[in-house]
Amino acid sequence: MTDTATDQRVESPATGTAITEWLADFERALAAEDVDAAVELFAVGCFWRDLVAFTWNIVTVEGHEGVRDLLGQSLHRVQPRGFAVADELGGEEVSGEAWIKFETSVGRGSGHLRLQDGKGWTLLTTLNELKGFEEAKSDRRPKGTEHGAVPNRETWLEQRRREAEELGTVTQPYALIVGGGQGGIALGARLRQLGVPTIIVDRNPRPGDAWRNRYKSLCLHDPVWYDHLPYIDFPPNWPVFSPKDKIADWLEMYTTVMELNYWGSTECRKATYDEKAKEWTVTVERDGKEMTLRPQQLVLATGMSGKPNLPKFEGMDRFKGEQHHSSRHPGPDAYRGKRAVVIGSNNSAHDICAALWEVGADVTMVQRTSTHVARSDSLMELALGALYSESAVASGMTTQKADLTFASVPYRLLHVFQVPVYDAIRERDADFYARLEKAGFMLDFGDDNSGLFMKYLRRGSGYYIDVGASELVARGEIKLESGVDVVRLTENTVVLSNGKELPADLVVYATGYGSMNGWAADLISPEVANKVGKVWGLGSNTTKDPGPWEGELRNMWKPTQQEALWFHGGNLHQSRHYSLYLALQLKARMEGIETPVYGLQEVHHLS
Amino acid sequence: MTDTATDQRVESPATGTAITEWLADFERALAAEDVDAAVELFAVGCFWRDLVAFTWNIVTVEGHEGVRDLLGQSLHRVQPRGFAVADELGGEEVSGEAWIKFETSVGRGSGHLRLQDGKGWTLLTTLNELKGFEEAKSDRRPKGTEHGAVPNRETWLEQRRREAEELGTVTQPYALIVGGGQGGIALGARLRQLGVPTIIVDRNPRPGDAWRNRYKSLCLHDPVWYDHLPYIDFPPNWPVFSPKDKIADWLEMYTTVMELNYWGSTECRKATYDEKAKEWTVTVERDGKEMTLRPQQLVLATGMSGKPNLPKFEGMDRFKGEQHHSSRHPGPDAYRGKRAVVIGSNNSAHDICAALWEVGADVTMVQRTSTHVARSDSLMELALGALYSESAVASGMTTQKADLTFASVPYRLLHVFQVPVYDAIRERDADFYARLEKAGFMLDFGDDNSGLFMKYLRRGSGYYIDVGASELVARGEIKLESGVDVVRLTENTVVLSNGKELPADLVVYATGYGSMNGWAADLISPEVANKVGKVWGLGSNTTKDPGPWEGELRNMWKPTQQEALWFHGGNLHQSRHYSLYLALQLKARMEGIETPVYGLQEVHHLS
Repeated sequence: MTDTATDQRVESPATGTAITEWLADFERALAAEDVDAAVELFAVGCFWRDLVAFTWNIVTVEGHEGVRDLLGQSLHRVQPRGFAVADELGGEEVSGEAWIKFETSVGRGSGHLRLQDGKGWTLLTTLNELKGFEEAKSDRRPKGTEHGAVPNRETWLEQRRREAEELGTVTQPYALIVGGGQGGIALGARLRQLGVPTIIVDRNPRPGDAWRNRYKSLCLHDPVWYDHLPYIDFPPNWPVFSPKDKIADWLEMYTTVMELNYWGSTECRKATYDEKAKEWTVTVERDGKEMTLRPQQLVLATGMSGKPNLPKFEGMDRFKGEQHHSSRHPGPDAYRGKRAVVIGSNNSAHDICAALWEVGADVTMVQRTSTHVARSDSLMELALGALYSESAVASGMTTQKADLTFASVPYRLLHVFQVPVYDAIRERDADFYARLEKAGFMLDFGDDNSGLFMKYLRRGSGYYIDVGASELVARGEIKLESGVDVVRLTENTVVLSNGKELPADLVVYATGYGSMNGWAADLISPEVANKVGKVWGLGSNTTKDPGPWEGELRNMWKPTQQEALWFHGGNLHQSRHYSLYLALQLKARMEGIETPVYGLQEVHHLS
Repeated sequence: MTDTATDQRVESPATGTAITEWLADFERALAAEDVDAAVELFAVGCFWRDLVAFTWNIVTVEGHEGVRDLLGQSLHRVQPRGFAVADELGGEEVSGEAWIKFETSVGRGSGHLRLQDGKGWTLLTTLNELKGFEEAKSDRRPKGTEHGAVPNRETWLEQRRREAEELGTVTQPYALIVGGGQGGIALGARLRQLGVPTIIVDRNPRPGDAWRNRYKSLCLHDPVWYDHLPYIDFPPNWPVFSPKDKIADWLEMYTTVMELNYWGSTECRKATYDEKAKEWTVTVERDGKEMTLRPQQLVLATGMSGKPNLPKFEGMDRFKGEQHHSSRHPGPDAYRGKRAVVIGSNNSAHDICAALWEVGADVTMVQRTSTHVARSDSLMELALGALYSESAVASGMTTQKADLTFASVPYRLLHVFQVPVYDAIRERDADFYARLEKAGFMLDFGDDNSGLFMKYLRRGSGYYIDVGASELVARGEIKLESGVDVVRLTENTVVLSNGKELPADLVVYATGYGSMNGWAADLISPEVANKVGKVWGLGSNTTKDPGPWEGELRNMWKPTQQEALWFHGGNLHQSRHYSLYLALQLKARMEGIETPVYGLQEVHHLS
């Protein structure tokens, strides 16, 4: 319902004279292919973020030179036109800001414009749909049955069964998505709507199993308004924080009703790209049987949390208790009254410690480096509330507007917007933080105090959204060893760098996940993985996110240095929003639309 | 999203002075318990339709005496107040009409008011929710996880599994719904939201099987905008006319994600009400094992099309070909090149004839009485478009507004609104109708030319929504024998009253369904069935709907003469809308809220 701006957009030509004048000037300059005139409309310190509409890339350019370069290389081909104000921003009206719409030679787009002293300060342009390949929805929805008399008609069920039978054997998918979590499923739904033959493979039997297999107390840490999939919103009775098995059921039903070709119990073994044939050869094992698929596009949607990072401590092979990575942790039931040591201090570590405490285990958390903690309630109210909350919905903030609003802030500026939010959280929860520190917990708010979401974008780790475990840490109910590392394991203890030796029946390694790039190395080759380089992160030159500045998340949802190889993933918000742009890129290629990539990223880091 | 008026309602106190003045006068009169003053505000020829808010019944009263009686018996208890305009009607503003809201001693309601010369002409009052028992949705939605540390916490999955295991064995459901089609499922979802422990039983294994088991070409004859279930709308890519297996998949996923206690493969054998214990004893056979359930409320949701009406023709036992009721017809595949005779001329008969023709069968339709035919396109445009269509949605017509708009027209007047629609259809499709009649087809538009929907409400039969079969009849591709009856069957022919003898390999009895009342007779006793009387129909004194005038559909969604026995069903629109009022009636009884029934219907016909 909330997929493209055109769906809800109401024309309001009277909005802000400054904006409409700017757009008219911009349009004139573009029509005349007068790049200089167009550049002059922007402030010197401007940002233009384009999601596929102008660049067939996800890219942010900065300043006059950036705008000049982008337009110089794309204007003639893109033929942008029809710029107009398209609906005001929801909530309070802010002058000098507006939703905009436009079209190009091949598509229709929407975006957002902020002026500063009459000059363009931030411009967001996004592609909504390709002309001639609009999705079959709303007034274009399928009829469902062909009225009239059709000799030897094939029913919907017969068609659907035949397609499922033939795809991958008689016919080949255009796109293969490896990984059937929320990312692969959301992208699969977009591609199906665009008529791109696609198979999603996942090693687990049923959609949602990646959630079902996690520790039993897990609930989503993001609230429901942030988590909608494309096309079908969660209903109004859906919990704020979805229990893992409930979100799993939703993903499973979504896969069915969106008619996705989802191959469960299918392991992807090997993928090779034939540069001449422009085709992948992918070996998969489906229900134990080896098959070869020949897609033209390969999407790795194996997830930020797909490749467990298991540390190597001396003595792990000697340890007689139970030990596993957090991704394999089944939940606390088997550990009542047992002694557990959890290595790590981020989300999973906290969740697992709390659940173990709840069944009466003796739990110690080993905190090796500092962690950012933010209380769920505070995040909901101060960080997300304006865009993703019941009150935001009530005030007219649709999911699509919220996503675009979020996307409209250039990453270069995002931390500036975030610092005050976390300052406010720090003040509001000062007592909480003081008690945590008193218990010895090493806290941080990110290198530049910009908090949780920037940590997520920069490194995808380093934080805990507190839903109760911190209180147990502060009270000493969860024992804490902080500022230490593990020296070695013995048969029944964990020996720490501070000399302590912790008796343990269970050791959980809540030590995070490897780069998504590692999947490319395993599946394709280390050479291709190196060619593509590091995935995720902004180049912010902060901990675990080395510079230089990239402008966008590395390799996500956009062309990589390896032709026909794509990365998809992120949280539910990102999977929902960016799957649209990745799907449009794939569709354009399938239809033979010219897709010259502006600003293909360079590779600065391997992993 | 579109369940209760309060969800979307925007206060607009400035709407129509006449309306607001009327409401203020009404409120004053009610507050003073001055029935005469209240009555005087209504036109002499007025209608007041109440859905549970004032009457704990579904009832329409007429004229001053009707209003006086209703208020006289309910006013003191109901304490209605807070009458106010609540949002304008969507689309063009019509003067003298408005959405209203109000509250009562126990709940909050909404409705609709039409004035005529300043007097109340039609008033609709509906109950939206019970105070203190509001549904846990939107800003009341569950949190999903209890934050904090909770020793021995039970997860969502553990709770859900325990409930499913214990309900019906350790604990008893408050309500038992017999029949798990869209009706039972929609009601089950409402009851779950209201916290009423409920089991739905159905003899088929999976939700949706009643659809899956029908003839393979079946698609819904009503368009998608008319068919939404409560809480989760069909997505924007959903077909206009759902193929049967696709709607079946939707019902199955809906049952899962709404967490309904759905017992498939469960046959209901016998139900007895203990008037003293106020409890039913219901014998069911679940997966072949007999069990006893003791619900306090029993809902028959076995459907308008649940009990096949198999005619008894001489020689049926001698016939050597295949013969079955339309509900058992598997589709045409086995009958390529065979000779088929289809007895009947309503929806199923047409669908089955066309599908048989499509595979090259030799098909004859036997039309025994006249049939109303309306083309699907014409119905969509002229009958449904204003309320249920893509353009209605685009112009702000929500499902809830559409349902309330429809409900706001008293049944006594509905045919007056319908006649011009079908006059227009007859004119638009004049050529089509002429060709059909030329082929010998016996057409009607209902006894008073009020068309399809009135036929549906009055008798639930007698029409075909044309999606192509009529063209085959007009062209003679489907052979037609009309104005005849079946005299007998021989070993391999059907002998008609016009003397013709049709060779047949297959005979399909598309002869409709028995009254829902028949289920009560089978399941409970003929005595209880007779006490309850005929189900469905308005008492319009037209064919198959004998008078006297009832004012509402007999026995549907409201108290019957048998305590604790309820009937639920109808099309998807009715299942969606009226399930709310039935659910609120059950919830109120469970919570011990006083529910004196005003105007309990009398029984004029047994079946």
